[in-house]
Amino acid sequence: MSGSEAPPSLGVGLLGSAFMGRAHSRALALLPTLEDRPAALPRLRAICGRDADRLAAMQRRYGWERGVPDWRELVADPEVQLFVDAAPNALHAEPSIAAAQAGKHVLCEKPLGRDAAEARAMWEAAEAAGVVHMCAFNYRFFPAVRLARQMVEAGAIGRVHQFRSRFLLASGATDTDESAWRLRRESAGSGVVGDLLAHHVDLARYLVGELASVSAATRTWAAQRSGVAVDVEDAAVCVVEFDGGAIGTLEAARMAPGHVLDSIVEIDGASGSLRFDVQRLNELTVSDAAGVRTINVTEADHPYIELWWPRGQGIGWGDSFVHEQRHFLGAAAGAWPVAPHGATFLDGLRCAEVCDAILAAAASGARERIGHGPKEPEA
Amino acid sequence: MSGSEAPPSLGVGLLGSAFMGRAHSRALALLPTLEDRPAALPRLRAICGRDADRLAAMQRRYGWERGVPDWRELVADPEVQLFVDAAPNALHAEPSIAAAQAGKHVLCEKPLGRDAAEARAMWEAAEAAGVVHMCAFNYRFFPAVRLARQMVEAGAIGRVHQFRSRFLLASGATDTDESAWRLRRESAGSGVVGDLLAHHVDLARYLVGELASVSAATRTWAAQRSGVAVDVEDAAVCVVEFDGGAIGTLEAARMAPGHVLDSIVEIDGASGSLRFDVQRLNELTVSDAAGVRTINVTEADHPYIELWWPRGQGIGWGDSFVHEQRHFLGAAAGAWPVAPHGATFLDGLRCAEVCDAILAAAASGARERIGHGPKEPEA
Amino acid sequence: MSGSEAPPSLGVGLLGSAFMGRAHSRALALLPTLEDRPAALPRLRAICGRDADRLAAMQRRYGWERGVPDWRELVADPEVQLFVDAAPNALHAEPSIAAAQAGKHVLCEKPLGRDAAEARAMWEAAEAAGVVHMCAFNYRFFPAVRLARQMVEAGAIGRVHQFRSRFLLASGATDTDESAWRLRRESAGSGVVGDLLAHHVDLARYLVGELASVSAATRTWAAQRSGVAVDVEDAAVCVVEFDGGAIGTLEAARMAPGHVLDSIVEIDGASGSLRFDVQRLNELTVSDAAGVRTINVTEADHPYIELWWPRGQGIGWGDSFVHEQRHFLGAAAGAWPVAPHGATFLDGLRCAEVCDAILAAAASGARERIGHGPKEPEA
Amino acid sequence: MSGSEAPPSLGVGLLGSAFMGRAHSRALALLPTLEDRPAALPRLRAICGRDADRLAAMQRRYGWERGVPDWRELVADPEVQLFVDAAPNALHAEPSIAAAQAGKHVLCEKPLGRDAAEARAMWEAAEAAGVVHMCAFNYRFFPAVRLARQMVEAGAIGRVHQFRSRFLLASGATDTDESAWRLRRESAGSGVVGDLLAHHVDLARYLVGELASVSAATRTWAAQRSGVAVDVEDAAVCVVEFDGGAIGTLEAARMAPGHVLDSIVEIDGASGSLRFDVQRLNELTVSDAAGVRTINVTEADHPYIELWWPRGQGIGWGDSFVHEQRHFLGAAAGAWPVAPHGATFLDGLRCAEVCDAILAAAASGARERIGHGPKEPEA
Repeated sequence: MSGSEAPPSLGVGLLGSAFMGRAHSRALALLPTLEDRPAALPRLRAICGRDADRLAAMQRRYGWERGVPDWRELVADPEVQLFVDAAPNALHAEPSIAAAQAGKHVLCEKPLGRDAAEARAMWEAAEAAGVVHMCAFNYRFFPAVRLARQMVEAGAIGRVHQFRSRFLLASGATDTDESAWRLRRESAGSGVVGDLLAHHVDLARYLVGELASVSAATRTWAAQRSGVAVDVEDAAVCVVEFDGGAIGTLEAARMAPGHVLDSIVEIDGASGSLRFDVQRLNELTVSDAAGVRTINVTEADHPYIELWWPRGQGIGWGDSFVHEQRHFLGAAAGAWPVAPHGATFLDGLRCAEVCDAILAAAASGARERIGHGPKEPEA
Repeated sequence: MSGSEAPPSLGVGLLGSAFMGRAHSRALALLPTLEDRPAALPRLRAICGRDADRLAAMQRRYGWERGVPDWRELVADPEVQLFVDAAPNALHAEPSIAAAQAGKHVLCEKPLGRDAAEARAMWEAAEAAGVVHMCAFNYRFFPAVRLARQMVEAGAIGRVHQFRSRFLLASGATDTDESAWRLRRESAGSGVVGDLLAHHVDLARYLVGELASVSAATRTWAAQRSGVAVDVEDAAVCVVEFDGGAIGTLEAARMAPGHVLDSIVEIDGASGSLRFDVQRLNELTVSDAAGVRTINVTEADHPYIELWWPRGQGIGWGDSFVHEQRHFLGAAAGAWPVAPHGATFLDGLRCAEVCDAILAAAASGARERIGHGPKEPEA
Repeated sequence: MSGSEAPPSLGVGLLGSAFMGRAHSRALALLPTLEDRPAALPRLRAICGRDADRLAAMQRRYGWERGVPDWRELVADPEVQLFVDAAPNALHAEPSIAAAQAGKHVLCEKPLGRDAAEARAMWEAAEAAGVVHMCAFNYRFFPAVRLARQMVEAGAIGRVHQFRSRFLLASGATDTDESAWRLRRESAGSGVVGDLLAHHVDLARYLVGELASVSAATRTWAAQRSGVAVDVEDAAVCVVEFDGGAIGTLEAARMAPGHVLDSIVEIDGASGSLRFDVQRLNELTVSDAAGVRTINVTEADHPYIELWWPRGQGIGWGDSFVHEQRHFLGAAAGAWPVAPHGATFLDGLRCAEVCDAILAAAASGARERIGHGPKEPEA
Repeated sequence: MSGSEAPPSLGVGLLGSAFMGRAHSRALALLPTLEDRPAALPRLRAICGRDADRLAAMQRRYGWERGVPDWRELVADPEVQLFVDAAPNALHAEPSIAAAQAGKHVLCEKPLGRDAAEARAMWEAAEAAGVVHMCAFNYRFFPAVRLARQMVEAGAIGRVHQFRSRFLLASGATDTDESAWRLRRESAGSGVVGDLLAHHVDLARYLVGELASVSAATRTWAAQRSGVAVDVEDAAVCVVEFDGGAIGTLEAARMAPGHVLDSIVEIDGASGSLRFDVQRLNELTVSDAAGVRTINVTEADHPYIELWWPRGQGIGWGDSFVHEQRHFLGAAAGAWPVAPHGATFLDGLRCAEVCDAILAAAASGARERIGHGPKEPEA
């Protein structure tokens, strides 16, 4: 873009008006403030949700032009060029596929589908439609995670030996702070595996590489709560092997009151280690023979920091969505590809294959191989 | 406000287009997204700065309607009801006083003036004009700081015995990351005392009470840099006494490369202690006989959190400015008073009196008493 | 013991003059200094090792009366009442069994045998001989671990949901700091599983309960080093299920240069969590809805602290051996039983069964059930 | 010493059978276990205390040959070559001077005297007697502190700009855990200044250099407790200037229940920072432009570690006394000088001059200059 050109304005249709709808709305509303010369800017064309009062409030707060009760209106709207699916999991596949088939670029929240079959259908439809597709793994957009990727690629920790992650949540311990739909397989696909652990599966793939096998155990701690019969897992623990030879553990839990939101990823290599803790999201810990070093990832040359403040003045959790939406809009405008730093629907599918294998392994007691499907959709 | 009424829209004029201008612009741009029923909303009427290209970019990014080269245009603009002074220190007194005298509510960056005399003139003018006045000590608007205040008031740590703070900055160690105006007394008033330590003086007053005396030493480490003859202090260390009997230390430094931005406040009481570290701004540490406890200040009932995300998903440094601007607009709209949770110009003056006393004590070697002036402007 | 009686003096024979031999020698030498009224005191009767100079030095340093080259001399010595086996793993079963059969009480380093079969033989022999037997899991003797046990038993964290541990070591990365015998199955039994992970298996059993199943993966990173063909694992990752329903992960690694000695155990319960980190061995972290609380385990009423200093002045790693030897001598003198706070040979056997299952699971890819054998030796 | 020679055995007389008496007794009892070829070894000749039962117990526990009620017996005993004064402060000057005059080498607990006048008399007497003299500032003997000294000397952090320390103690908050003698000026000399802050004054001198001036404030929080009228300070805060140009803060407090034992020293230099925290005494934190790095000070080439365990297995607080006694015995045996790594009586005097100046500054409100007296005793 030359100095005299305005960036393209892309009409966005958002499905979802709860927590994730707010996170994406805020990100879109913030995008114009980020930089002098953005690759593209959003027009907040329409938001879809069931509660009219809620929609009206979202319109006032974020500037959505329209509020509609049926996502088909978003798909039908020619002013919508970008479709953002931030609805509960059961509303990922059908709307996202319809949007893609209508020629809209699609950003869909994780997990991509409720299982790998849904995820595969979504990926194949998006590929067939030739649209830009992205799965909203926002962890990739924390500056410290992006710096970790740079360091791994640069060989800073040597060949990766071991991966370790946990995602533990206090919520769910009481009946008050969790949407009931998350407790049913039909609506959620899975419990903590798709909701929490999927984030770390994606980071494992982003930072280490493809997973080869998984062994697992899962538990449901309270079979009846929030008025529903819980049929998804509250806790999962996994052992994994990577294609490249590394091994690791992943685990996730709700109802862990000692952990407000304890989401940590660690990678041990032949010459050093990395650690990212979302509670201290502006830090990256790098260890080697010289000691354990904490980097404040707010220096001018750190990823994304040119969009923010002078060193030391960190960003918040919600700002990962800002980076994510910026990445999506830029990709839609042709400024850069979604991959490798954004997750495509193929990444969403690969993650879903791992999640399915985790549940299968927990049920079978066997080490389940993760069969990476084709990289091109089947004809 | 009833459900059917729109919140008042208040025209804002902003002086300053550098770091602080950006922080306030972003906060204003974000304000509408915060809540369903805001007390007031900003209209970004006009921004003033010297660089036309910069102004044009700020208009594009944040939606400022006008960009003007002379702050007098802001003061003269009848559409400007709120004046935000985010300019370098030498441009605090004259523009803020003029704006107040023109009937505009004024939010001025810290330090309020370059010294207590300027700060007093500003306070007296604002009081005489009857406008809402606020000094932009943004630390008061971190949820953890506000929670600390609640806990001190509730007696959670008992009578305060000791206060301790540090504000150490890596910047200034090289010539690249500091505005030259900060290095001269004429333009800045002081060095780290007004720039950094003032934040903690304000927190000391907010959390403990008025200071009674100070002893201090200061240093300038490199007399010539960034092309100017540095005549302000690069480092300051202080011992203080409070009116209520507590004692404490405060210190600040630039050119401390081991400290990216190390800003920590600690309060020891007769039954426990509090600690706030801006690098971990979503945490408050509370210690007592039962151990050292870190609270993740993101629970639904914590200050400001109803504006944000579910527990565990913390905010960023810049979001303190969002809370601050929200507080200012609400005060301007009559929804709440600036004090006690916002700092008024009187708070800015009291802080300036302490800062002046620190410099005087460093020069004299004596314990300087801090004579709190009148609480009402002199006739 | 009344005030006028001297505590019994028990003759000790020690097999091993390397690292573990030193740790136990120092502990024994320190025992008399610990308390005014010990249950028993050691007489350092004889130490056995192959290097005569080394033995002579050990005699000088710790006061061993005799140095002998063959452990059978210890067994034959009627002045030896307590046999401490701190030799490499291949020298656990035969000497310990011989000592037990000679009527000596036995403390044997972990892992008890090179596999469960050896461990079972040791346990059965010791039971048959009717001697006091103890396996040297020194982690049980850190005050913070003992406090954790007290808290779990008192219900402080509710029903246990999840267990998590890691034991990562920088050593082994080079060829310099590891005894070659640790690299061969014949001499060591296993690699990190018996050497490191066994400590955490024992803590899992001590703090949570019996394990029911395990899935695992292992790796050997460098097949040839320290002049030997390495045929044991350098890394292991495990998923476990407990009899009581809890699930968990355990992992261990050598050659992890980002981790000097990173040994951490965490337990999540229905109402809170505990964390012990051997690098901060005087601390126990307790988390619940009120936050993350670090307890300095040096208060007068904390376990073992009556033997040490006023609060805040912590002990060192080697001091766990002091508590361990004190426990062993007291048990030998009839002052208290080895169980539950010390590990018996049965505990050593149970741990070995888990370690064997880990290796089996790594090989089979299946979830291996841990069949707890009988609690009484078979006739 | 050749392999065939035994190290010299030096008879020790210890004055003091309370906390400090135990710490020194344990250290002496441990000395033989430390190394194969010690420079000298102690003979625990006699201990002096007022309570006969306590003395008898100390004899049993540590192996003291004699227990005597009057320190003059230690001075008169020709078998005592080393005099260790671990008595309350009022019993430092007279016994230590008498011992020196009797030709015994003297190690005296800190603070050396109750004030600089006493300390000067002690130093002059020891110098006049030509004996080895050492003041028991045990902090110098933590491996991490010694490493810090090495790093400062090697220029690792550049020219020192700022020093910062705190020594905060929960004890004293109740009446139970403090000896009443510590609460009276006559018996203690001062309160937290001599008891706690003196440690950090010594470290400031050891790590940075001589202090030039001090400003201070002090407080006594409860004038009547433990049955006595408290006439010493419970809290002190200081600003200091160093001869070399650095500035700093020091502070100390009792009755700070949020701080079990919070003793931290930080040094900021032109190119980096160091931090030592006695709660994590096996760690040294080194910060610079590359981040905040924690070194586990247990590597084979770190100070004192050849006396201990393989890496990662840290020592305890009491082990600093082991290093201290080893240093004293070696100095007495002529193996090395007390200075610079041990504190001499001259260091004790210099520290006392600073402590006196702190109390004077607190009283006067003025910046008090610290007049370093002569380096040679006056004739």
